[in-house]
Amino acid sequence: MADEQLAFTSISQLGRLFRAQKVSPVELTQLFLERIRRIDPKLNAFITICEESALLQAKRAEARFARRQRGKATRDPGPLHGIPLSLKDNLYTKDIRTTGGSKILLDFVPLHDAPVVSTLKNAGAVILGKTNMHEFAYGVTTDNPHFGATRNPWDFERIPGGSSGGSAAALAAGLCCGSMGTDTGGSIRIPSALCGVVGLKPGLGRVKAEGVIPLSVTLDFVGPLARTVEDVALLFDLVSVRGDREKPFKLSSRKRAFTFGIPKEFFFDVIDEQVSAAFETAMKQLKKQGHKFKFVSLDHLQASEKAGNDIAWAEATLYHQQAGWFPSRASEYGDDVRSRLEMGTRVTAIDYLRAREIREKFTASFHASLAENALDAIVVPTTPIPAPRIGEESTIINGSPYPTRSLLLRLNRPANLAGVPSITVPCGLTQQGLPIGVQFMTGWTDEPLLLEITYVFERECPLTARPELY
Amino acid sequence: MADEQLAFTSISQLGRLFRAQKVSPVELTQLFLERIRRIDPKLNAFITICEESALLQAKRAEARFARRQRGKATRDPGPLHGIPLSLKDNLYTKDIRTTGGSKILLDFVPLHDAPVVSTLKNAGAVILGKTNMHEFAYGVTTDNPHFGATRNPWDFERIPGGSSGGSAAALAAGLCCGSMGTDTGGSIRIPSALCGVVGLKPGLGRVKAEGVIPLSVTLDFVGPLARTVEDVALLFDLVSVRGDREKPFKLSSRKRAFTFGIPKEFFFDVIDEQVSAAFETAMKQLKKQGHKFKFVSLDHLQASEKAGNDIAWAEATLYHQQAGWFPSRASEYGDDVRSRLEMGTRVTAIDYLRAREIREKFTASFHASLAENALDAIVVPTTPIPAPRIGEESTIINGSPYPTRSLLLRLNRPANLAGVPSITVPCGLTQQGLPIGVQFMTGWTDEPLLLEITYVFERECPLTARPELY
Repeated sequence: MADEQLAFTSISQLGRLFRAQKVSPVELTQLFLERIRRIDPKLNAFITICEESALLQAKRAEARFARRQRGKATRDPGPLHGIPLSLKDNLYTKDIRTTGGSKILLDFVPLHDAPVVSTLKNAGAVILGKTNMHEFAYGVTTDNPHFGATRNPWDFERIPGGSSGGSAAALAAGLCCGSMGTDTGGSIRIPSALCGVVGLKPGLGRVKAEGVIPLSVTLDFVGPLARTVEDVALLFDLVSVRGDREKPFKLSSRKRAFTFGIPKEFFFDVIDEQVSAAFETAMKQLKKQGHKFKFVSLDHLQASEKAGNDIAWAEATLYHQQAGWFPSRASEYGDDVRSRLEMGTRVTAIDYLRAREIREKFTASFHASLAENALDAIVVPTTPIPAPRIGEESTIINGSPYPTRSLLLRLNRPANLAGVPSITVPCGLTQQGLPIGVQFMTGWTDEPLLLEITYVFERECPLTARPELY
Repeated sequence: MADEQLAFTSISQLGRLFRAQKVSPVELTQLFLERIRRIDPKLNAFITICEESALLQAKRAEARFARRQRGKATRDPGPLHGIPLSLKDNLYTKDIRTTGGSKILLDFVPLHDAPVVSTLKNAGAVILGKTNMHEFAYGVTTDNPHFGATRNPWDFERIPGGSSGGSAAALAAGLCCGSMGTDTGGSIRIPSALCGVVGLKPGLGRVKAEGVIPLSVTLDFVGPLARTVEDVALLFDLVSVRGDREKPFKLSSRKRAFTFGIPKEFFFDVIDEQVSAAFETAMKQLKKQGHKFKFVSLDHLQASEKAGNDIAWAEATLYHQQAGWFPSRASEYGDDVRSRLEMGTRVTAIDYLRAREIREKFTASFHASLAENALDAIVVPTTPIPAPRIGEESTIINGSPYPTRSLLLRLNRPANLAGVPSITVPCGLTQQGLPIGVQFMTGWTDEPLLLEITYVFERECPLTARPELY
């Protein structure tokens, strides 16, 4: 198999290749490390490359496969064994520096792994490195003032989105098989959409958010990014709290008609024509396959933007104050993050309490809408625009300028506010060849349903193109 | 029995008199209504007197006793049956106006009773009227700008404390047998201490706070006031969520040595000499009876004052905003309450979040101190000063002036912040004949233990004097 093709092979397929001895974890890890050395100087998706420890992990995984081959180990080591992954650089990694994309934590080496990281390591995953991100996860461009801007593999002059921009870019460029990121207002889904990969923000409590440099304790979520729904499902299944699902989660291939809700308000108010056209085409395709659609109303959507901001701003600033960094080391932050930390000091207690009330009401109305309309999921675009240019602060839609940052966050924040699971999958390309994402949201604890739905969607609306990196 | 003596008879003793047909609910209710007509014009403890409905309730109670006397009813109607009570005017009463001590709600007549009120009514209690209070429970003087100042029965030139000032004054003056009040930072305990009665602020979740005009949803508690611990226990037993206590709670008369913790810091930093002397005398008396004492440390006490203020101020203003009263009807509030509502708009989200963190830490350290030192309760004075004069804004202690409001709240707020049960019982009089209170606090759900302790204390340090009302 050509190296290029191997780098874009799915996790499940790689597992079969390992077991058929067609490729080994060490070979695969060497391939990715070579690609990172070659491609990442331009792409800038990684802050730290863990060459030595990755090769050690790969050798151990390989030895384990060999023992099993010789009949010495009976239990299969599972689907992530020997799979090269990357981790966003705000997830604590023992003995590997964890910068949070900041200058302040440039030399911070955690004494322990985040729970999700130790779970991945215990499953035999190979950690290739720590990915670039928006400073302290507090932004959506990954134009990092300390480590440089991560480039979008589909157009190097454009942002990959953020804050988990390095993870999404590395996946789109074939520099890893999967990644773990964090999402406070879209930080997994925005870069996944802009880079043409799959990203899942789980529901409340489904994946432990401990061992992460926090942004907003109320709105932070940890979740997986990968190139296919099946790969995301394998990662989610491993790192999530399983509840009463005793057996590993299996994607079903049986046919079933889903009912989708399309919100009448908010999500389509401000949107690029190419994005709305791609969304419509995809929905028509789903309809043709027998899936049903209803137009629904969600209360409190307009208020969700301010509510999400008030909660995130206040909680972020509180954390940075309590860590002793703000305002005493204010000059060490990038301008945009510093100005947001300053905004956090000006949120009033009453605004914060009103925001929490909006959060509860919106969560209730979201679930009520699912129940009343017998919906499997609500479907909307992930971002109203494709990847903006690096440095773009305002984007023109229908002749009017809108703040780019707000546009990217706008359709993502509702799922953080309600704490509901949300997944983005590719939904075609613009004429300029930029990926477009579609987002499915459902009720608390229904991640398996979201994965089923998008597994179906992915087969019906596949993204076959790949970015040209050379 | 002389009328005067009957008015000061305990609830349990009145129950015996009813059952022995020595006195009837109607006679007793008439006696209290006559005393209210005679004494309250000077005392000003009541906002609304419910003469007609009280007599109707008394007649029903009397009829029920008569049926039982004739052998027609088998079950005893319980200890509150036919007992005349008062209710603070922020507890919703169906068909009886509930002003909250405000001009804004001057004509507000609730459509339903608060759960505690319907519980009392169902138990056959007679509701004599609604008591005066600090406007919207937002203060500790009960110097009400709309209904006039309630007077302290022990000295008519002095405040009864607040915000449940009318309830405590009515009890001390023999105008009811018990009352229900609310306590956000001492509003049951401060007036109980200043008027020489017993007041219990229950622990979190023990008495439903629904159907109450809220001050601060986090710090509000509903609880009973009465003249004896046993009477408070009867009221608490009726209105509290019973949990696994299936049978009615009985005060035990068995002897047992308790271990008390006296905090080393904060509670004795600023205190009137006569109050600290009375406290010491009482503790010596307890020690003589075989009870043990330990000096203990409680963390975060100094921070509890600001934390309590930040939470209460923000939550109070939010409620008044959402009710549509503030700032649009700002001129209808008293000056002090209006200025506090304005302060609430200036609390930042970060201060509020820090306050909630202090609350959690203080709650943990309070319970840790009880456990580590094997304490039954922590004992401190209820207020560092006896009743101040009406209009007194600053009080001299050891030659230095302190803001009177802060002094009265200071020792009470910790129990609201931690959500722990706290009770005040009389602990002697000053040379000027003003009551002094002692406060016992213990861990969540241990109200029965507090009642046991104070039942013992009351017998060992009884308050035998009565205010001279004529």
